[in-house]
Amino acid sequence: MTRIAYVNGEFVPLTEARVSILDRGFLFADGIYEVTAVLDGGLVDHGHHMARLKRSLGEIGLSCPAGEEELTRLQLELLRRNGLTEGTLYLQVTRGAAERDFRFPGTDIPSSLVMFTQARDLVDNPDARTGIAVKSVPDLRWKRRDIKSIALLAQVLAKQEAAAAGCAEAWMVEDGFVTEGASSSAFIITRQRALIARPLGHEILPSVTRISVLKLAEEQDLKIESRRFSLQEAHDAQEAFNCSAGGLVMPVICIDGSNIGQGVPGDITKRLRQIYIEHARQTVISNNNSYIRSFPDI
Amino acid sequence: MTRIAYVNGEFVPLTEARVSILDRGFLFADGIYEVTAVLDGGLVDHGHHMARLKRSLGEIGLSCPAGEEELTRLQLELLRRNGLTEGTLYLQVTRGAAERDFRFPGTDIPSSLVMFTQARDLVDNPDARTGIAVKSVPDLRWKRRDIKSIALLAQVLAKQEAAAAGCAEAWMVEDGFVTEGASSSAFIITRQRALIARPLGHEILPSVTRISVLKLAEEQDLKIESRRFSLQEAHDAQEAFNCSAGGLVMPVICIDGSNIGQGVPGDITKRLRQIYIEHARQTVISNNNSYIRSFPDI
Repeated sequence: MTRIAYVNGEFVPLTEARVSILDRGFLFADGIYEVTAVLDGGLVDHGHHMARLKRSLGEIGLSCPAGEEELTRLQLELLRRNGLTEGTLYLQVTRGAAERDFRFPGTDIPSSLVMFTQARDLVDNPDARTGIAVKSVPDLRWKRRDIKSIALLAQVLAKQEAAAAGCAEAWMVEDGFVTEGASSSAFIITRQRALIARPLGHEILPSVTRISVLKLAEEQDLKIESRRFSLQEAHDAQEAFNCSAGGLVMPVICIDGSNIGQGVPGDITKRLRQIYIEHARQTVISNNNSYIRSFPDI
Repeated sequence: MTRIAYVNGEFVPLTEARVSILDRGFLFADGIYEVTAVLDGGLVDHGHHMARLKRSLGEIGLSCPAGEEELTRLQLELLRRNGLTEGTLYLQVTRGAAERDFRFPGTDIPSSLVMFTQARDLVDNPDARTGIAVKSVPDLRWKRRDIKSIALLAQVLAKQEAAAAGCAEAWMVEDGFVTEGASSSAFIITRQRALIARPLGHEILPSVTRISVLKLAEEQDLKIESRRFSLQEAHDAQEAFNCSAGGLVMPVICIDGSNIGQGVPGDITKRLRQIYIEHARQTVISNNNSYIRSFPDI
């Protein structure tokens, strides 16, 4: 089946989905994106993704061509047209196509809105069963990593460096402390069974998956310490994991060739993954549940 | 006249010039660009632009879909098709269109090559007669600014902040020292008539215009000091200027509302601008000079 994408008001085959070469997303990385997990045909942590999108857009003074209800409707329609039950939905807003100039274009230039889907087994993911290896790399990114911008070249290079070393993810390190993964947030669980989560700030992206995972961890009476952790602490940890829309809760079993704990997915991590998936399934926004029934015209 | 762009092997009207939404330039800022000044219908400092392009591509492991001779030929053909005598030529290489994944795609995915022109009066530029005002802003960029990547969001925000303050350019400041302009390199001339140029490194882009201007300055027996300068030193300077393909040598007369020197373009800056333009005109690569005669089939 040909995948269907959404581009500036139209649903089109992905193979025909194009934007102007003058789009500021293409020329300046002047845009914001979100990746949402799709489970059981529904959008996971949808409200948190919409809130983060709104915040990122605001931080760079970018207006969205659709309001939140319309965005939700478009995303659900995209899932429906693609018959997607499990995978990810990608959404990107850029500052439109205009004569190339670093300064923002006039208000007559509409923002661009692009969406597409990727089918993937998120729950039955072999990586989650075995756990993944990560490679530490210097964090080369800019100083506003809390903005989920499409200026991702540093992350691309980090991920490629990890892949070249046979690792599924890069952990970026700054001043000796782990900031986060190239496309995930990074956590460790100490031998004292405390979950260490780096405090939010300009240094890391406010992970949507993290919000739910930390809340669920608290409900499990897991002790959570909000502080930075060093690469050495990560090596000495009992367990480690990543959070992301695509990976959900992903066990990390090895850093730079050294096993974490026993070199297998940790018990607490496995439990967190399980309850996160249960939570996600219970809270998805889909074409079948009450949310969409308020938009019968789709 | 409709402008003509070049997109992946074809010359097309700019209004129809498009790339896939999966192009990694659009999704990841995974690309490199060059802007070349065009004077008298020819490419200014062409060899230096090609060398910098090659270097940037190498730094991110990106292959160019055309060799240097072919690139030169394509650029000259683009100038010819647009009848461009003065302005800029924009060239961008990205890592092609592939299923979204941070890791590099396979070698079966060709890089994208995009070019277009912008007509502008570079020599008879009113800004050069009056000089421009700049605004200092924190330098938020990543740690490999020597790579001319399209991950330009920090520069966009800097330029917009300057524009909002009525300034034509932003000077980015890190640790108290000026790094460079948002889309230009930054220089001052002290009251002792020394030209201060920040040494090259990962902190700034190796400006092509700078190469020629510093060489010409040496020939004028101007003392050149290769060192960082602080924002305070800039305020205390006798003259200040920017170098870029679009601005050539551009007098800076005001920083953050305070005049530099007499608040008018400085004599040394004006002289450097004049001799740079003479140099540029004498060395352009055009459809009329010997270079292109080796490609008679265009």
